[in-house]
Amino acid sequence: MPDPALLSINTATVRQQWGLADIIAGLARHNIRGISPWRDQVAQLGLKESARRIRDAGLKVTGLCRGGMFPAPDSKLRRAALDDNRRAVDEALTLEAACLVLVAGGLPRQPDGTIVSKDIGGAREMVRDGIGELLDYARSSGMPLAIEPLHPMYAADRACINTMQQANDLIDELAGKGKSEGIGIAVDVYHVWWDPELKAQIERAANASPSRLLAFHLCDWLVPTTDLLLDRGMMGDGVIDLPRIRSWMEACGYGGMHEVEIFSQDNWWKRDGDEVLLTCKLRHETAC
Amino acid sequence: MPDPALLSINTATVRQQWGLADIIAGLARHNIRGISPWRDQVAQLGLKESARRIRDAGLKVTGLCRGGMFPAPDSKLRRAALDDNRRAVDEALTLEAACLVLVAGGLPRQPDGTIVSKDIGGAREMVRDGIGELLDYARSSGMPLAIEPLHPMYAADRACINTMQQANDLIDELAGKGKSEGIGIAVDVYHVWWDPELKAQIERAANASPSRLLAFHLCDWLVPTTDLLLDRGMMGDGVIDLPRIRSWMEACGYGGMHEVEIFSQDNWWKRDGDEVLLTCKLRHETAC
Repeated sequence: MPDPALLSINTATVRQQWGLADIIAGLARHNIRGISPWRDQVAQLGLKESARRIRDAGLKVTGLCRGGMFPAPDSKLRRAALDDNRRAVDEALTLEAACLVLVAGGLPRQPDGTIVSKDIGGAREMVRDGIGELLDYARSSGMPLAIEPLHPMYAADRACINTMQQANDLIDELAGKGKSEGIGIAVDVYHVWWDPELKAQIERAANASPSRLLAFHLCDWLVPTTDLLLDRGMMGDGVIDLPRIRSWMEACGYGGMHEVEIFSQDNWWKRDGDEVLLTCKLRHETAC
Repeated sequence: MPDPALLSINTATVRQQWGLADIIAGLARHNIRGISPWRDQVAQLGLKESARRIRDAGLKVTGLCRGGMFPAPDSKLRRAALDDNRRAVDEALTLEAACLVLVAGGLPRQPDGTIVSKDIGGAREMVRDGIGELLDYARSSGMPLAIEPLHPMYAADRACINTMQQANDLIDELAGKGKSEGIGIAVDVYHVWWDPELKAQIERAANASPSRLLAFHLCDWLVPTTDLLLDRGMMGDGVIDLPRIRSWMEACGYGGMHEVEIFSQDNWWKRDGDEVLLTCKLRHETAC
C-alpha cells in the first residue's frame, strides 16, 4: 500500500468544482500534502497569492502545469511560445514547484487553430529546438523541466512526444547520453501504460544521472473510453495495473509523490469536490 | 500519384449502406480492382457465393478481416478462439485472400465482455502463443497471417500489439530473427502514423525474408477525433502524411494494393455508397 503522505492532487481533478483557493483549502481539510496547479488557475488567483496560500497550507508543489506547445508555423510564433515558457519557469520558481511539466505540442498551428503541416518529424524537431533553448534558461534558474510523453492519440493536437523511449532519446540528445541536468520526465500512467517498453524505459530514465523520474501521475483507463480527452477514470475503475507500474518506479529509486490527475467531464467533474478528494485518498490506498 | 489500379476497398467502409453482394457490384461498377471483406458479411452472403461473386468480378482479395482475439480467461475459451481462427484461415483460402488479417485482442475477457485481468504482459503472451499455434495451421494451408498493430488507444479492448516494433519483435520470436515464413504485418496508417519508429520498422519488416509487408491500409486521422473507434477520416481530410508513408513502403519494395478502411458513423457511413467509392477513388489519386 502506498504511503498516504505521498498523495498529491493535480488541480485539474476538481477544476470544474473549485477555484485554486478552494482547492488549497480542500486539500488542507483532507490532509493531502501535495498539489500540482495549472497556470490559468494560478493566474486567476494571482501568482503571489497562490504561492502564499500554498506555502501557508504546507503543500508540496509536485509540478506546475504546464509549459510546452513549441511547434508553430513561423519563427515569430515559436519565439512567442518560448517567451511564454520562460514565464512558466518563473512562475514555477515562485510557486517552489518541483518541476515545470512540459506538454510538447503537436503539429504546428496558426493562432486560430488551423494545422498548417502534416510533417510530424518537423514538429518533433521544433520541440527539440524549443526545449533546448528553454533548458538554458531553466538550468540557470534552477527549475527542472519534466517532459510528459502524451498518449499517441494526442500526437496531432497536443504532444508529438508519445513514448518514454522518445522522451529518453530526446533528453539524451539535449543533455548528453545518460545525463539529465535540469531535465527529466513526468510519467503519467494514462499515457504510457500500454507501452511494451515501459518498464525498460522507466529503468533507463532512472539510471540516468541524475534520475530522470521527476513526477508520477495517476488515474485510470476506462473501457469503454467515451472521449479522447475528458473521460479519464479514477484509480481502480479502469484497466491499468497501477501497483505494478508504481512498483517499477519505486524499484528503481523513485521516491516522489503520486499525483492524481483526472479529466472527467461526465463523472468526477460533476461530483462534489470533497467527495472527489476523499475518493482519491481512498483509491490511492486501495488501488495504487 | 499512386496507380489507380492499386486501390482496394475494405468492405467496412460502406458496411452501413450495402451488403457484400452490393459492395462487389459497386466495386465492379466503379472499376475498383481490390476488396477486403469482413467475415460477418461473408457469412451473411454465404462463403461460396461470396467467393464466386468476387471471382466473377475479377477482384483481388487484399485480405480477410479478421482473425485474432486470442486472449481469454481460460484454456477452453482460448481453444475456442483458436478453432475460430482456423476457420478464418479456411475461409481466407476459399476467398483466395492475400492474407488473413489478425487483430490480436486486448486484455482477457469473459464471454459477457468483463475484463478479468489487468496483466497486459500476460495478454501479450497469450497472443504470442495463439498466433504460434495458428501459424502451424496457416503455413500448412498456405495462408499468410498478417498481424495488424492497432493504435495504443485499443490496447485494452481490441489489440495489445500496438506498434510495428512489437509486431516485428513478435514475428522474430515466432518465425526466427529476420524471418517471416507465412507471417507478416498489415500496416494501417491510422494505427501507426504517430510512431517515431515507423520508417525504421517498415524497413525492418521489408528486409525480413520474405518481406513482412503484407498489406497497406489507408484512411486519415481527424482533428478533432470525436469517437475512439468510429470517426476515421477520408484520405486528405486529416493530418496523416499519406504520400510520405506510402513512399516509405514502396521505397523498400512494397508493391501491393492500397486498401481503404474507414469506420465513420457520423459521416461516410451516412452517405450514398457510390459517393463514398467515388470519393475513395478521387482521394486515392489526389491525397495518397
